Amino acid sequence: NQSSQNTLFFLNTFLSSATNYTLATYLRHLTLHPHLAGTTPSLNTALYVKSHFESLNLQTHVTNYSVLLSYPLFSSVTLHFPNGSVLSLTLSEPGSSQNGVIKPYHAYSPSGSAYGKPVFLNYGREKDYVALSAQGVKINGCVGLARRGGGLSRNEVVEKAAARGVTAVLMFTDSESEYASGVERGTVMSGLGDPLSPGWGAGGEKLRLDDPRVMKRFPSIPSLPISMASAESILKSLEGADMPYEWRMSMKCSSSGRVGPGPFVVNFTYEGERKMATVHNVFAVIRGSEEPDRFVLLGNHRDAWTYGAVDPNSGTAALLDIARRYALLMRLGWNPRRTIILCSWDAEEFGMIGSTEWVEQNLVNLGSKSVAYLNVDCAVQGPGFFPSTTPQLDDLLTEITKKVNDPDSEGMTLYERWTTANRGIRIQRLSGVDSDFASFLHHAGVPSVDLYYGKDFPVYHTAFDSYSWMVNFGDPFFQRHVAVTGVWGLLALRLAEDPILPFNYLTYAVQLQDYTHILSDLLEGGISLHPITAAIQELAAAAIETLEEAKKLKDDETTDEHAGLKQRMLNDRLMLAERGFLDAEGLQGKPWFKHMVYGPRNDGESELDFFPGIANAISRSSGLNSKEHNEAIQHEIWRTARAIQRAAHALKGELT
Amino acid sequence: NQSSQNTLFFLNTFLSSATNYTLATYLRHLTLHPHLAGTTPSLNTALYVKSHFESLNLQTHVTNYSVLLSYPLFSSVTLHFPNGSVLSLTLSEPGSSQNGVIKPYHAYSPSGSAYGKPVFLNYGREKDYVALSAQGVKINGCVGLARRGGGLSRNEVVEKAAARGVTAVLMFTDSESEYASGVERGTVMSGLGDPLSPGWGAGGEKLRLDDPRVMKRFPSIPSLPISMASAESILKSLEGADMPYEWRMSMKCSSSGRVGPGPFVVNFTYEGERKMATVHNVFAVIRGSEEPDRFVLLGNHRDAWTYGAVDPNSGTAALLDIARRYALLMRLGWNPRRTIILCSWDAEEFGMIGSTEWVEQNLVNLGSKSVAYLNVDCAVQGPGFFPSTTPQLDDLLTEITKKVNDPDSEGMTLYERWTTANRGIRIQRLSGVDSDFASFLHHAGVPSVDLYYGKDFPVYHTAFDSYSWMVNFGDPFFQRHVAVTGVWGLLALRLAEDPILPFNYLTYAVQLQDYTHILSDLLEGGISLHPITAAIQELAAAAIETLEEAKKLKDDETTDEHAGLKQRMLNDRLMLAERGFLDAEGLQGKPWFKHMVYGPRNDGESELDFFPGIANAISRSSGLNSKEHNEAIQHEIWRTARAIQRAAHALKGELT
Ligand SMILES: [Ca+2]
Ligand SMILES: [Ca+2]
Ligand SMILES: [Zn+2]
Ligand SMILES: [Zn+2]
Ligand SMILES: [Zn+2]
Ligand SMILES: [Zn+2]
Repeated sequence: NQSSQNTLFFLNTFLSSATNYTLATYLRHLTLHPHLAGTTPSLNTALYVKSHFESLNLQTHVTNYSVLLSYPLFSSVTLHFPNGSVLSLTLSEPGSSQNGVIKPYHAYSPSGSAYGKPVFLNYGREKDYVALSAQGVKINGCVGLARRGGGLSRNEVVEKAAARGVTAVLMFTDSESEYASGVERGTVMSGLGDPLSPGWGAGGEKLRLDDPRVMKRFPSIPSLPISMASAESILKSLEGADMPYEWRMSMKCSSSGRVGPGPFVVNFTYEGERKMATVHNVFAVIRGSEEPDRFVLLGNHRDAWTYGAVDPNSGTAALLDIARRYALLMRLGWNPRRTIILCSWDAEEFGMIGSTEWVEQNLVNLGSKSVAYLNVDCAVQGPGFFPSTTPQLDDLLTEITKKVNDPDSEGMTLYERWTTANRGIRIQRLSGVDSDFASFLHHAGVPSVDLYYGKDFPVYHTAFDSYSWMVNFGDPFFQRHVAVTGVWGLLALRLAEDPILPFNYLTYAVQLQDYTHILSDLLEGGISLHPITAAIQELAAAAIETLEEAKKLKDDETTDEHAGLKQRMLNDRLMLAERGFLDAEGLQGKPWFKHMVYGPRNDGESELDFFPGIANAISRSSGLNSKEHNEAIQHEIWRTARAIQRAAHALKGELT
Repeated sequence: NQSSQNTLFFLNTFLSSATNYTLATYLRHLTLHPHLAGTTPSLNTALYVKSHFESLNLQTHVTNYSVLLSYPLFSSVTLHFPNGSVLSLTLSEPGSSQNGVIKPYHAYSPSGSAYGKPVFLNYGREKDYVALSAQGVKINGCVGLARRGGGLSRNEVVEKAAARGVTAVLMFTDSESEYASGVERGTVMSGLGDPLSPGWGAGGEKLRLDDPRVMKRFPSIPSLPISMASAESILKSLEGADMPYEWRMSMKCSSSGRVGPGPFVVNFTYEGERKMATVHNVFAVIRGSEEPDRFVLLGNHRDAWTYGAVDPNSGTAALLDIARRYALLMRLGWNPRRTIILCSWDAEEFGMIGSTEWVEQNLVNLGSKSVAYLNVDCAVQGPGFFPSTTPQLDDLLTEITKKVNDPDSEGMTLYERWTTANRGIRIQRLSGVDSDFASFLHHAGVPSVDLYYGKDFPVYHTAFDSYSWMVNFGDPFFQRHVAVTGVWGLLALRLAEDPILPFNYLTYAVQLQDYTHILSDLLEGGISLHPITAAIQELAAAAIETLEEAKKLKDDETTDEHAGLKQRMLNDRLMLAERGFLDAEGLQGKPWFKHMVYGPRNDGESELDFFPGIANAISRSSGLNSKEHNEAIQHEIWRTARAIQRAAHALKGELT
């Protein structure tokens, strides 16, 4: 019919309006200066995004929050050798400080000094301490050296070290790259959002800095990131116990093959300040013509540790180009059925602060009216398409990859190349708490997507993450930017336009069933997964019913006078089903995380990156006798089953 | 227009179809036998209600739950006087046991014996113990005698006594009535719903009886209810300290004017059993023609301690008569716009178990799709109209009372008599946790109403609450039943039919402002109510906008082709605003209670029967120094303010 013909025209126009050079221009502009959250250059990027939106005649606004950020004042690390020689570690990247790049630091690290023998902690995981202990290494009172990459957050690495008497932690990124002098900045705060307003939007109640609820967000000992080169100068001089075989085999940088402690001593000092700063979320709103109260959200953070060419402004360039292209469609007469909101977040690097405060402030409306949240952080890191979704969005994403050209192979669609490379469709899930989707999915239960091209880029959070790196290595011709922009923009278009939301919950049910099989292999006797499998059956049945209902509604669309209201009723169920996975109590010990299917594990080593309640109950085994342990797991199985049942109820929409 | 003409016709037909004799017939039938939850006669009432609904061709279903109930096995209380004489208290009402009336008991009381001197505890409030202590009365090891009525629940009376070393509690109802031999049964469980499934629907995970989460629901010492006559035989023989002047002046029964302990000794024994029983909720569903996914719920419990003529079957008769009259309208061609559900709950007397399990099981759909819950428990206790509502429903209720005839004065409307008696409109609020609305409002945030005629009826929970009491005293001609049925049925009709929901949130804002003034007089300096007053401003502004929008939509109804969708969007906001008052964390120490405006106080003596978080923070003063105390109150003020702000956001419907 007319309306779907129109939509098709606009979808095609969106695709054909792609341009590499606009993307390059936006990225160039955004990355001229380092723009750490809370600084003037960062405010300038907010104004740039705002004026871009405004110049396109999009309805634009900025929402500011005053939040607690953290900056370095002074740092030094010196090595004192038995022979009296002293080596001062280089803590900054070469030449970076005169350009306004912030000295490497860990945001929210406490200030402090330490003087102790160095010991290598590998990834700082529980099993690494077990290995050290097996070698007879005493680490109490030492300065720890840890490499990133074992599945723990920076906060967890520092806190686990502190619990064992380590007095300060040095962290480096072990890689084969030519960026040995690069230093990976990062936050060591636990939890998301402004530490002074845990669970509610900043701007109202503000906890004091010495409130225990604030203090527990920060590590108890100081830490600093160092370059691989600096790490090597420690590792190559370590004596003491032998490095465990597995560690040695996986090390990419050179070392003495020993873990310490000593024989030399590390003199560590870090001083930082925590201070209130204003962060700026910038929005462009394209108000829906028929259902203005249904929101499709596209989000990307804007703040960067340094220049942010990859992280996050490759995504920002994409967001600005989508704005340009949507504005073009609007000039051609387009108005989406539902409201589309482009969100440019601030202070993600400090702990998803901009997005989290906004989600906390708008929880009740987001919870009842959001269709989906589509995140893009590091849009382009290199080759290869790596999407993550909540499973009901798999079909839509797959369909869209068939419309977009592959950036790295002439004449192929993204779908063809992507599925060939992976021998099938390969979509990741969203249990990680590593970008702005976390508040939307884990706290508010909004179906989510996270897209990126390439992975594990070597200049992550270093001074080398610049426009020149992007044009030399990441995406010289910006065709990967074009591809990710196409997928992102089409996803939002379809979600905003399709009369019936393109959600397939049967995929969700199948995914949950797979999880159950993995879990089943892991669990011992006496624990029953039946509650979960029964709930999945309910979800699958509701999903099938819903798909049939959707088909019937599509067939009757033109003849039924109440079609609009009926679509809306079905869409309400499709939209709200994800919210069923939320549990009001949240995860044990992390009550802010409400989602029972996707969320953070307490144990970064756990094989289970789903059902976080169950995963955490399994890893909390120590200290419980087997009966209590099994009961705790069984209780989490019930909680997870009830969450899945709630999703099934929401999808079915009927009372018992 | 045509549709509103039609609606008017059906409203009038509903009103004119009232009959006293059908109500009397239903009540007679329901009260032929005592029908305590979990017993066969109770199942028969479920079948009666079910077959009534079915005979009217209403879509009917029964939802069963297996839950833990509690029944008495043996009880005896003897008084052993210093002169060697022994008096055995009569624990049952005269002649009641041969009729199948359950022996008076406290549901969920632990079994146990006690042998100790009696002491009179008055209402068992904190200040009563202060008064006893001031008189030098030692109560440790004594058997306590308490009268009902001080604002505490039975559970609280028993637990406060246990905390002071009392070994068993006897409870009586002090009144001037001729029912001195009546005994008030009741539950001593704390919290709502099946104790084995706290927070989730029964039928899945089931806690063990010895689980601490179960055990804490029950008192730690046994208790029994006794008649006023039995209480007098103790009170008249007490010696020891003088009864405080205030207590003596308010006592309706005779006493020695002393509080004990002793001189005689009470030998107390209670044995009961807790056992699994099946409870039956019966539903009739009138599916909405245009918005089947919006629910207007009418609920009443069906189970009774004895015959239940007042409590609750005067309400059940009304529910059955509404079913009859709605079925009549349907035969005349009526189909409501939204879905109407008639709910007949079981096991309310044990702790709102039937309704709570259902609400817990259906939380996600009720939370997103319920328009309102309209409760009637003891529909008719005597003369006088006593309605309670959440404030956005005041206007609708008032309007409806103008359509219904007053049952006690010829030629007057209910409105005229009601407002004359009270010199204006007098509507109570719903902080009490005393009938089935509690789960809907306090846990799920559904706008609620509770209606009754008369109050403080003398045969409450006794064997005398029978059909003959109703025809002799309560409502001889059933005209009060007719009135309450009219109000109840019209409320549901309007809520199911009005194209725009008849909610006025400005009334809510005004009510909240009044609360703030009361609070302001109570609080000391250093505590700011500004967060709340600012949030109320936001709510009031959103309410005014919404009223204007509703007016405009009504004016444009016939000309705007998208009117249906626009109404639905506005209605969604009106429907969801109440949900904003919910806080995911819930009340401190009572996390199941999520509503920050209406909910239970920890301190039954508190003047504040609103803002329970704040009220409880104020009454938790003991043990905190003033600074901490003020901070705790301020934190609850912030939590309450955020709840009001969420309601404002939901009503306004816009993101920041
Ligand atoms: Ca916050
Ligand atoms: Ca329950
Ligand atoms: Zn990023
Ligand atoms: Zn980053
Ligand atoms: Zn009742
Ligand atoms: Zn009752």
